[in-house]
Amino acid sequence: MSDVHAARRARLRERCAAAGDGAALVTRPANVRYLAGGGPPGSVLLLGPDEDILLCPRDGGREGLRGAEEPPTLTAVPISGDPAVAAAGLLTPSSAGSLAVEEHHLTVARHRAIGAVVPGLRLTDLGCAVERQRIVKDEEEIACLRIAAEIADHALGELLESILVGRTERHLALELERRLVDHGAEGPAFPTVVATGPHAGRRGHRPSDRRVEEGDFLSVGLGADYRGYRCLIGRTFVIGSSPAAWQIELYELVFAAQRAGREGLVPGAGYRDVDRATRGPLEAAGHGAGLAPRTGHGVGLEIDEDPQLAPAAMGKLDARVPVTVGPGVHLPGRGGVRIDDTLVVRPEADGGPELLTITTKELLAL
Amino acid sequence: MSDVHAARRARLRERCAAAGDGAALVTRPANVRYLAGGGPPGSVLLLGPDEDILLCPRDGGREGLRGAEEPPTLTAVPISGDPAVAAAGLLTPSSAGSLAVEEHHLTVARHRAIGAVVPGLRLTDLGCAVERQRIVKDEEEIACLRIAAEIADHALGELLESILVGRTERHLALELERRLVDHGAEGPAFPTVVATGPHAGRRGHRPSDRRVEEGDFLSVGLGADYRGYRCLIGRTFVIGSSPAAWQIELYELVFAAQRAGREGLVPGAGYRDVDRATRGPLEAAGHGAGLAPRTGHGVGLEIDEDPQLAPAAMGKLDARVPVTVGPGVHLPGRGGVRIDDTLVVRPEADGGPELLTITTKELLAL
Repeated sequence: MSDVHAARRARLRERCAAAGDGAALVTRPANVRYLAGGGPPGSVLLLGPDEDILLCPRDGGREGLRGAEEPPTLTAVPISGDPAVAAAGLLTPSSAGSLAVEEHHLTVARHRAIGAVVPGLRLTDLGCAVERQRIVKDEEEIACLRIAAEIADHALGELLESILVGRTERHLALELERRLVDHGAEGPAFPTVVATGPHAGRRGHRPSDRRVEEGDFLSVGLGADYRGYRCLIGRTFVIGSSPAAWQIELYELVFAAQRAGREGLVPGAGYRDVDRATRGPLEAAGHGAGLAPRTGHGVGLEIDEDPQLAPAAMGKLDARVPVTVGPGVHLPGRGGVRIDDTLVVRPEADGGPELLTITTKELLAL
Repeated sequence: MSDVHAARRARLRERCAAAGDGAALVTRPANVRYLAGGGPPGSVLLLGPDEDILLCPRDGGREGLRGAEEPPTLTAVPISGDPAVAAAGLLTPSSAGSLAVEEHHLTVARHRAIGAVVPGLRLTDLGCAVERQRIVKDEEEIACLRIAAEIADHALGELLESILVGRTERHLALELERRLVDHGAEGPAFPTVVATGPHAGRRGHRPSDRRVEEGDFLSVGLGADYRGYRCLIGRTFVIGSSPAAWQIELYELVFAAQRAGREGLVPGAGYRDVDRATRGPLEAAGHGAGLAPRTGHGVGLEIDEDPQLAPAAMGKLDARVPVTVGPGVHLPGRGGVRIDDTLVVRPEADGGPELLTITTKELLAL
């Protein structure tokens, strides 16, 4: 893997050179991991004029509470105090000229401390250069996402075989998270969502003590973290032998919208076009007002990355971009439906979008 | 609770007025929760010249993944875009004069955006004013910490009644986290640590697939989040019927050090004096080199708050300050011992330090 990370750093270095920056300081944790391959929490990467150095906190702000990640491909240099400030201290204005920092991640206080440690060093903005570099994945990254999705599918599949009626949302969520780890996840990719009855399909629902009842919609959202890569799957089920007519109708509507979005995932498609494909059927059915501001997003080292699939999003999909497609409709007081998949954009010649989360999307009555 | 939050805001407003700031923008999540009583993730609090407003993201960056917290005591105003920028937009240079922001939390990019939205508004640094206000807790906060500690004690007690040999660190950690939630925690206060054999007592250990074996030291660190308040307990046990002589000796040493630290928790004691009381016996026994940079810290809405109990820490303890006391010694290749408690500083007239985590600290052979 070490070559992979060195190649990523070389690409960023080219970008910095083109922008006139002699050095770059990467502080956002997922960006550090992407470029360096790991390191303890709080590590920062200095892409220097001569060499690249990973600086990590000697003590860690929260030593004893959080552990180190996998070994990085760079030598990790333990530093007392703020690693970002120490990194800047390795530079001189004459050697580096300017240092590009991640202004969208660095705090004002750290930025000021960096500026003070090397007077005369010009601080510029690296912007989201690393985040943009992360959008298109290589096949090794996609392999990790594929395994993460398999783990989530397994955990969900096992839950569906168990008795659900009478159990609380909170316990079902914990059970799913335990199963994710059982199947090899480092942990859940994000806090697992289990929503029953009137909660089902609701955005931002946190598992409560409500118990699953006969006739409920049950919506579940979960994902696995496998080697840092995070996927997302969401499904909605009906509890009991026969769904009500309104439940079948709502499910079919959301399913059709989600399929339209999935089918729009071709290289060259605009982010907003995919969103429109998903959103259109729901708006046409009169559910426009309650819809989420976006219907999908990128995944990778973070569960929520670019691109954003939203009405005003600019940009076009490339091959090897993993995204979620996950519309949902919630009817206040009654519940609702949400269906999320993680897919990888592939050219039609390669078979079109690759579905990573393969749990059935038939409406199961459990 | 609404009066409590209003009183906290009034105190901060006085501090701002004294510093000449007409308004303050609070962005750090634990600080927002402390002053406003809750709100969806990403909410910010504007302590304005006329009124206080909680601004929350209309969509939430990660809507659907994370839920809203308990209802705040202020009206939550949904905002499209960055709530911090929108908050600044409510001010004029003439009405506010200057706006104090949390430079240790706010990113450079957000700071710049805030500056751009109201040209002429002077941005000053609020510093850690709210964090300092949070150090001394009121009795309601301490009651939450007490319940959090009870929950952790229960979870740990139940684990000790089960069979441990042959189970992995990872599964024991998950089991503990499930039990925390079973007993009423919102979740774990931090990722649970379970360390066996050569891992035991090691700082920053993450649960692995190593299984508990006869003769192991087993060290466990966990805590509950109860209504946002987080505690910490750490214990070390021996697996099997009879601990080895070196295990008993090491345990007694760490126990004596931890007791010395606990006994130092009186109002007026210097942070560094408590650290020295804990650290001294370990250094005297030749374990100085491997010790953590601090032996305890504050807890509350965050698991790691001020004060820091460390050799160079400045300041003195007050009554009603909850802190951890948790020394540990790790012998590479052999394992080690760590014992953590959460206590509240109380005057001697009130019985001295209040121990919140009451699980026994006898060396149990399990």
